[in-house]
Amino acid sequence: MTIRRLSSRDADFEAQLEALLAFETAQNADVDAAVTAILADVKARGDAAVVDYTCRFDRLDATSVSDLELSREALQQALDSLSAVQREALEAAAARVRSYHEHQPLQSWHYEDADGSLLGQKVTPLDRVGLYVPGGKASYPSSVLMNAIPAKVAGVGELVMVVPTPGGERNPLVLAAAALAGVDRVFCIGGAQAVAALAYGTQTIPRVDKIVGPGNAYVAAAKRRVFGIVGIDMVAGPSEILVICDGSTAPEWVAMDLFSQAEHDEMAQSILLCPDAGYLDQVAAAIDRLLPTMPRQAVIRASLAARGALIAVRDLDEACMIANRIAPEHLELSLADAAAWVDRIRHAGAIFIGPYTSESLGDYCAGPNHVLPTSGSARFSSPLGVYDFQKRSSLIRVSAQAAQKLGRIASTLAHGEGLPAHARSAEYRLTDALGD
Amino acid sequence: MTIRRLSSRDADFEAQLEALLAFETAQNADVDAAVTAILADVKARGDAAVVDYTCRFDRLDATSVSDLELSREALQQALDSLSAVQREALEAAAARVRSYHEHQPLQSWHYEDADGSLLGQKVTPLDRVGLYVPGGKASYPSSVLMNAIPAKVAGVGELVMVVPTPGGERNPLVLAAAALAGVDRVFCIGGAQAVAALAYGTQTIPRVDKIVGPGNAYVAAAKRRVFGIVGIDMVAGPSEILVICDGSTAPEWVAMDLFSQAEHDEMAQSILLCPDAGYLDQVAAAIDRLLPTMPRQAVIRASLAARGALIAVRDLDEACMIANRIAPEHLELSLADAAAWVDRIRHAGAIFIGPYTSESLGDYCAGPNHVLPTSGSARFSSPLGVYDFQKRSSLIRVSAQAAQKLGRIASTLAHGEGLPAHARSAEYRLTDALGD
Repeated sequence: MTIRRLSSRDADFEAQLEALLAFETAQNADVDAAVTAILADVKARGDAAVVDYTCRFDRLDATSVSDLELSREALQQALDSLSAVQREALEAAAARVRSYHEHQPLQSWHYEDADGSLLGQKVTPLDRVGLYVPGGKASYPSSVLMNAIPAKVAGVGELVMVVPTPGGERNPLVLAAAALAGVDRVFCIGGAQAVAALAYGTQTIPRVDKIVGPGNAYVAAAKRRVFGIVGIDMVAGPSEILVICDGSTAPEWVAMDLFSQAEHDEMAQSILLCPDAGYLDQVAAAIDRLLPTMPRQAVIRASLAARGALIAVRDLDEACMIANRIAPEHLELSLADAAAWVDRIRHAGAIFIGPYTSESLGDYCAGPNHVLPTSGSARFSSPLGVYDFQKRSSLIRVSAQAAQKLGRIASTLAHGEGLPAHARSAEYRLTDALGD
Repeated sequence: MTIRRLSSRDADFEAQLEALLAFETAQNADVDAAVTAILADVKARGDAAVVDYTCRFDRLDATSVSDLELSREALQQALDSLSAVQREALEAAAARVRSYHEHQPLQSWHYEDADGSLLGQKVTPLDRVGLYVPGGKASYPSSVLMNAIPAKVAGVGELVMVVPTPGGERNPLVLAAAALAGVDRVFCIGGAQAVAALAYGTQTIPRVDKIVGPGNAYVAAAKRRVFGIVGIDMVAGPSEILVICDGSTAPEWVAMDLFSQAEHDEMAQSILLCPDAGYLDQVAAAIDRLLPTMPRQAVIRASLAARGALIAVRDLDEACMIANRIAPEHLELSLADAAAWVDRIRHAGAIFIGPYTSESLGDYCAGPNHVLPTSGSARFSSPLGVYDFQKRSSLIRVSAQAAQKLGRIASTLAHGEGLPAHARSAEYRLTDALGD
């Protein structure tokens, strides 16, 4: 196949790179209109609307939302049904993900200043969180672990999962992952109707405080619409990998790492940067050699043709600069001396250090989260984490003594802003005004 | 005046409370269409479009964006022009806000597991941030401090402020606050055109990674539209205060605290909860007595009439339950034994503990941020903080030894998800596959 070859020495390299990275999120007006109607209907009719849409879209014949809820026993049975090797893999992955995220939680803190005032922040987990899990081919147990475990580590009180089961087909690995991750309730519903049920609550489905997890265009549009009523996680774009290689890694390893991103879907992006043009030839040859052996070769070929690139760079310094320009979701430093280059990277969702650290290990079981900022948003956002399931409240206790000092400052500034009630409220706390 | 009186004993109290809290964010289609056109124009024409809109909307006659930039000297002059008492108040507030936020920054961390793998997270400040400051009557120096200082504490490389100056009128307090907070560049532009310039960059105005700060409906709509290209802070609703009082605080203090919220605008919300109905009568009387003395009495009256309430509750336990139901932006615990009740509060943007801690002290100078989650979003979001100007990258370095164990787990799970390139990428790192 022909994969795009660029060189940073090209006169129009910057324009070529920009064109390569360009990606417009389709905001389909039809999708948005359909979603708006479904949201309003579920808000108004609750359970009845959820049952109607689920029977229609997922070809089920439920008569109540209770029919669509899975018991804890059903989840446990799914876990028990796995082969030993699958169960052990899932358990090992869950344990490692949990262990990593246990390093994250924010703690409450406070301090007293010299005037005896207390200042601090109180950290609280969210009360209840909804986890959207797609049905069909994009129904991934690893995604259940990556979304549910940080919520549980944060201490979220109740975790409500929704997963559509078109035609009644359930994914036992997904249900087993829910059991392992400690998901509290599971409803077999999906689409905008599931998002609406979680955001507004129905007679049977409890209202949540935040909705996380990936979904199709309808789910993404619904999440955008209910944002503000509930929290949402970021709306993800296509997945991306950027590999920086010094030419010392087996070309097949790098080719397969590019494939592992490309096999997700046709819009996924796989880019390799290397200062050695001869090595890029070797990777191109490995791509040609390996591609016919891949079960998902059609998707990989389409993705690499549309959005892939092998880019010759002047040196590794320049490669790091380009990486920071791209701010990739996944960055592999496939370098002999990889650790030495980590400090050069300012913007990336996750940094995979050294040739043994394939992205796929991070996707499943290294420990860090695989929900990462896409489309350059690593410039300003972060991997999903325990932080996303906690929130802070500021604590302020001003002593009578401190109120004398602070009251004068606040009064001056409030008058400067033309807010006299603010000023007077502060002035009341001044001792010589106590008799007011 | 008549302020709404409710009792939690009323049979329909829950419905009354819901109606009181209901607030629909107007999403005006005309505003959205105007904003979309401005964004596209600034993206296409850059500086020229910014100059055009600024001359038209702000009645200026600039010929280039450079004409609209303020020098550092101009900011310093604004600071030097303040009266000693104003300058000292602003400096004291800035110092306290900085000191509080210096407790916040996330630190990078990593650890090695038993197999020699390194796992961690690298924390980086955002490269460049845009700070929107409204013009006209809502142009608040305190808001400059509250947005700029956490960005600077985080280590943001460049902080670019935009502030419209309709008719050429500049607010020296705002510019002085920018000087004190260390803002790097200031452009006298506003509206959707300023948001567009920051999000896309122009020939003169650098593209930023995130835009923070309050604005009118056009600014809010523009921020929503550019979200994803850049980060944005939350879009705030009307400001709110909830006071829980045991009846031991001077009724005038509580009345004035309610006023200080109500004076912001007609949609602001001020609610008092107290178990002592007689005390509510005293506060109502204080409201009547004090209102005619307030310069902004028209706004206060409109706000209290539309959205204010004095609510009799059974006891303080119930008051805390109602507070958690409301999840207010500002919560005053105006109680003799206030500290003992803090643990009962799960959802609030900021908790003001004890009768001396008026909200106004927190608005200006106690130290914590005054940008807080509104409209019940304290259930899932947090005060603005240093965290909002940092982002994390996950670090993963899997040793050759650990890759043997993790590769088998990842391979099993990848096959289970139907992603064979993921599996093979992991399998390549198994030693017995090294000769591949």
